[in-house]
Amino acid sequence: MNTVEIASAVKRGERSARDVVAEALERAENDRFNIWTAIDPDGAIRSAEEVDRRVGRREDPGPLAGVPVALKDLIDRAGEITTCGSAFYRFEAVRSAEVVERLERAGAVVIGRVGLHEFAYGFTSENPWFGPVRNPHDPELSAGGSSGGSAAAVAAGQVPLAVGTDTGGSIRVPAALCGVFGLKPTHGRVSLRGVFPLAPSLDTVGPIAGSVADLAAGYLAMAGWDTADPWSRSRPVVTPGRAREDLRGLRIGVPSDWVDGAATTDEVAEGFSRAAAAITSLGAEVDTLDLGLAFRPDRVAELVGGEAARVHRRWLAEGRPYGEDVRRRLERAVGVDLDTYLEAREWQETVRRRFERAFETVDLLMTPTTGTTRKPIGRETVATLQGEMHHREVLSQFTSLVNVAGCPALASPLPGETPPPSLQLIAPWWAEHRLLEVAATLAEARVIADWTPRGGV
Amino acid sequence: MNTVEIASAVKRGERSARDVVAEALERAENDRFNIWTAIDPDGAIRSAEEVDRRVGRREDPGPLAGVPVALKDLIDRAGEITTCGSAFYRFEAVRSAEVVERLERAGAVVIGRVGLHEFAYGFTSENPWFGPVRNPHDPELSAGGSSGGSAAAVAAGQVPLAVGTDTGGSIRVPAALCGVFGLKPTHGRVSLRGVFPLAPSLDTVGPIAGSVADLAAGYLAMAGWDTADPWSRSRPVVTPGRAREDLRGLRIGVPSDWVDGAATTDEVAEGFSRAAAAITSLGAEVDTLDLGLAFRPDRVAELVGGEAARVHRRWLAEGRPYGEDVRRRLERAVGVDLDTYLEAREWQETVRRRFERAFETVDLLMTPTTGTTRKPIGRETVATLQGEMHHREVLSQFTSLVNVAGCPALASPLPGETPPPSLQLIAPWWAEHRLLEVAATLAEARVIADWTPRGGV
Repeated sequence: MNTVEIASAVKRGERSARDVVAEALERAENDRFNIWTAIDPDGAIRSAEEVDRRVGRREDPGPLAGVPVALKDLIDRAGEITTCGSAFYRFEAVRSAEVVERLERAGAVVIGRVGLHEFAYGFTSENPWFGPVRNPHDPELSAGGSSGGSAAAVAAGQVPLAVGTDTGGSIRVPAALCGVFGLKPTHGRVSLRGVFPLAPSLDTVGPIAGSVADLAAGYLAMAGWDTADPWSRSRPVVTPGRAREDLRGLRIGVPSDWVDGAATTDEVAEGFSRAAAAITSLGAEVDTLDLGLAFRPDRVAELVGGEAARVHRRWLAEGRPYGEDVRRRLERAVGVDLDTYLEAREWQETVRRRFERAFETVDLLMTPTTGTTRKPIGRETVATLQGEMHHREVLSQFTSLVNVAGCPALASPLPGETPPPSLQLIAPWWAEHRLLEVAATLAEARVIADWTPRGGV
Repeated sequence: MNTVEIASAVKRGERSARDVVAEALERAENDRFNIWTAIDPDGAIRSAEEVDRRVGRREDPGPLAGVPVALKDLIDRAGEITTCGSAFYRFEAVRSAEVVERLERAGAVVIGRVGLHEFAYGFTSENPWFGPVRNPHDPELSAGGSSGGSAAAVAAGQVPLAVGTDTGGSIRVPAALCGVFGLKPTHGRVSLRGVFPLAPSLDTVGPIAGSVADLAAGYLAMAGWDTADPWSRSRPVVTPGRAREDLRGLRIGVPSDWVDGAATTDEVAEGFSRAAAAITSLGAEVDTLDLGLAFRPDRVAELVGGEAARVHRRWLAEGRPYGEDVRRRLERAVGVDLDTYLEAREWQETVRRRFERAFETVDLLMTPTTGTTRKPIGRETVATLQGEMHHREVLSQFTSLVNVAGCPALASPLPGETPPPSLQLIAPWWAEHRLLEVAATLAEARVIADWTPRGGV
């Protein structure tokens, strides 16, 4: 059952939250993909019983009543240990993150914490301390990252909804690799309070789910202004409308300077072309468009690294244990000085301006989410039509620029071999509802894939 | 004659631009306040003649036809030397700044360049290399800064319109000290291309003028999107409406946590109270409001300094000559590291959020512009009700937070002894038109002072 079905059955008393959560706990406990870093069966059952009591008292149990949720293990929950997938970081939270409080107020039940790329600083979730999160479509493949456990938990059918974070693609990349849906909200839309930072000016928190409806329900519960987060902004959260018959009147731009030169597999390129054709046949105007913008992984690395260094500089100097790849990235990050950072920040403003200009002529932008959905565990490079390339560039080339701009973006699985290619839709700032409405229409028209859990269920 | 009168007389052929400009040149050449760093009589006359030829050919000479303009000497104009008020910086511009091109397309005639605080990094314009810009109300007083020459040129009646820049108050402070009007636009509203940077994420360019109508005309000519400036934003420029009968329906907040603890003179405090009462009697709701925000000059200094260091670090290391006060500030600025800067930037986001929240309940905010309008040349401290204090804090305490937030703000002279106290109105982002409309109404109702040139004319 998906989020919406669970919540409605629980609310009507047709199913108890306790049963729903007990089943999810059983699936999580039988997990074969190394998804969980901690499961809280007693606490989860108690929370579910509290939801059932609310139903019994005829109180509104909330729009996510009884929905089992997986939490990326860098988000605080009162009484639990946040590890950030690290060898040494252990924080026992006294207070839950704002996003957890919101989800719980909406009736969701957090059943446990899931694995991630160490400190969220990478795209594979091949974690040296907790082991690699495996892809439910093929356990020899990476689940993607950094929110690998969140995407895998949904893809394996263990939970209908998971919470991830996204600084350069960390929600969308694992959603793509695991064939599920991921939404990176506008920067400032979901509170960062209680979420371990990577690069605060780019960090976002958002939902990963098995359907557009679940994604929307998760997003609506999570979004909203928080005075305790300096990056949070007060903007109305618009509830997305239902799926439409067609997409007439919608203008979608394919940024050719970005997509044409990209490193993709055949399958991703073909899936994307087919999606564009299907979207056109639904009545949308799909046109290529020149953003006038080069993808500059060096600049992105300076922005993310410069901000990440603020937390890690001291630990690195103290010789704390980091995995090889994260340590290497952090060693470069601590070398980013203020002048370099400010240059990158100026580039960031150019990126924002170019996106702003693009959105004067189109309603959405569209790209593949990742250049491939197959990242073998333990391999640095991946195969693309341009040859073997470093996985980081292939996985993040379409996603990280969106964080630089700050816009919201949605990753949806396309039809195809599993894991299937993924479509990224990008909207103007604060227009998450537009992404969710269009995705609902595409799901209805079967342009994006109906989701079927793999593995566990 | 003011801007609007000049342009309309020139357009109708009632006066020649040549005569208007020749008169302004004569006033500038007889200046007694050390305002100008360079005057371009031949070029100005040629430009004026070109405006007259356009009128002769019955072409539209533009909304600023024949209006003589003074340019702050850190803004490039093709063929001229930009000095930034420095001992060593001499840049012969090949291309004019975007804002100069816009003004000239509107028919304005730049007659010369005016003095400023060295590299715009201070509030007095007591320049060690060019001498202090003197206040036309009293030559023993500072004209304020950093756009001291721009405000003094207007106050002395030498030109009806001048261009300034504002990073922490550099338009509003000299406008206040010289008893004229100054508008700091929203950050991103007026292009920074060709303007020497102080701190790009806070820098703005805007008009200084002798009346609200002139300020509006200057602003409308200057504002607009520029793809060559990474900080420029594409937002509609709304033409302000005319003065209204009253201010019914307008909600103005006085941020008490900011205004109550401030260091002001008796005259400023009284002028501000009288203004608040007069505005209330015009029908506006004036209420105190808690921004929940401490003024943190240390954080502002880190933001400005951290960005300023990007340009000055090398010159300082090379031992280039700087005036004593600017050198001391730059020596601290180059010590701002990335971690400190990012902390200040996070504070900046808090400031933005607090302003955003305030503007959910009020249409404008209102404070004095400066704590005093009398800064004796050569004295570090100024007298306030709280005793003698460093001039920088007294002059910038109400202005620099507005740059941190990025909002537009307008400084207007109030009635009173000369130089009179000044009222600052602050609007939400991109709502310059609201400031100009309200100021027009206040001018009509004589709540803010009719302007009379001092000295030269």
